[in-house]
Amino acid sequence: MNDLLVVVVGTTDVSLIPGISIAGPSPEATHYTPALDVEYLLAGRPITLDVVPATPEGIPTPALVTRALTSDVPKLVVDAGARVQPQVPRVVLGGVPGGDIRRGALPREAAERVVKNGVLLGRQLSGLGRVVLGESIPGGTTTAMAILVALGYDAWGRTSSAASNNPKELKTAVVKEAVSRLKPPVDAVTAASEVGDPVHLALAAIALGVVAAGGEVLLAGG
Amino acid sequence: MNDLLVVVVGTTDVSLIPGISIAGPSPEATHYTPALDVEYLLAGRPITLDVVPATPEGIPTPALVTRALTSDVPKLVVDAGARVQPQVPRVVLGGVPGGDIRRGALPREAAERVVKNGVLLGRQLSGLGRVVLGESIPGGTTTAMAILVALGYDAWGRTSSAASNNPKELKTAVVKEAVSRLKPPVDAVTAASEVGDPVHLALAAIALGVVAAGGEVLLAGG
Repeated sequence: MNDLLVVVVGTTDVSLIPGISIAGPSPEATHYTPALDVEYLLAGRPITLDVVPATPEGIPTPALVTRALTSDVPKLVVDAGARVQPQVPRVVLGGVPGGDIRRGALPREAAERVVKNGVLLGRQLSGLGRVVLGESIPGGTTTAMAILVALGYDAWGRTSSAASNNPKELKTAVVKEAVSRLKPPVDAVTAASEVGDPVHLALAAIALGVVAAGGEVLLAGG
Repeated sequence: MNDLLVVVVGTTDVSLIPGISIAGPSPEATHYTPALDVEYLLAGRPITLDVVPATPEGIPTPALVTRALTSDVPKLVVDAGARVQPQVPRVVLGGVPGGDIRRGALPREAAERVVKNGVLLGRQLSGLGRVVLGESIPGGTTTAMAILVALGYDAWGRTSSAASNNPKELKTAVVKEAVSRLKPPVDAVTAASEVGDPVHLALAAIALGVVAAGGEVLLAGG
């Protein structure tokens, strides 16, 4: 069976909080990272800016490893909602960039469009081979924690980081403030649209669509 | 080998010229037809409007036949530049809706983005199976004639029509006025950006990418 690598990109304004993400040389630069990652992956070099994304200390993006490992794997980029739009072919789902989760991540209608279109896309992709789902969204480990907590899991401090020094206290404080707006229990779309981001939502929807159509999904991480 | 149906949609303002296209109940309605076609194809019913596209005389869109024939074929929608954007997952290439070819079809930069991204997309799709290329663009037989004439072919009156009564005189007059702006010989991108449309350009670019990567293309028509 063939593999198809689907890389879902997007942004959340959580990555603009100083110290929370090292997926870019500065908080503002993190919003360029998803676009540069997939441009590098598909076109062989970043296009929007002529620079490979790196941490403040100069460690390059894991997209280098992805490109090396998947040179013969067909790839599809899905833009779930990226503030900087990749300059390569990309599937759009009607999503928008994610806001700061302390004030709300996504308009409900945008979240519902992403779910509906993600499922439709997954159904179509299921016939093409095993769907390997990757992603790029700086700040994504913080939104992951917030989504899990909103859904009732004891996930406090339990999501990882691109940094060897995981800023758990800062992330936990942001998540605490974000989920304080919610009245549990909440469903998954509410969790994602209130305290999540477009990428987590799109990944879940695509996976649902693939599986519903009898296909196979491999979660490949970031 | 699997098949993958790629349906490229877009619009040209040529379809707004009264009498030139029957791919919609009125000239203005033709701009909805590509979106409704692919919504029906992927989601099982039109979404943007709750109506199956039809000719002024009520004959429904050939998308009905496409859906019946391809129920088990994975499908991908490419939006090369549609004035009414389909409410289903769609690949975007950085294109824009096509203008009236008597005054110019596409900005050169948009045309070049479509070519570059179409080739990139084709390269990725080539590994997934045989790429069956379909399209939906009302007015497309007129722009096809204009592109062929611009490239030096004697194509006057030689493109077909969705109508049993092909309005060849009207189409020929529009093409004559359009190509009068050109100084031959012109290359393919100039032909498409001056007197063509985003869909023809995207189809050519995707086909080039598939073939360049060693894949197989089947042109499936409209």
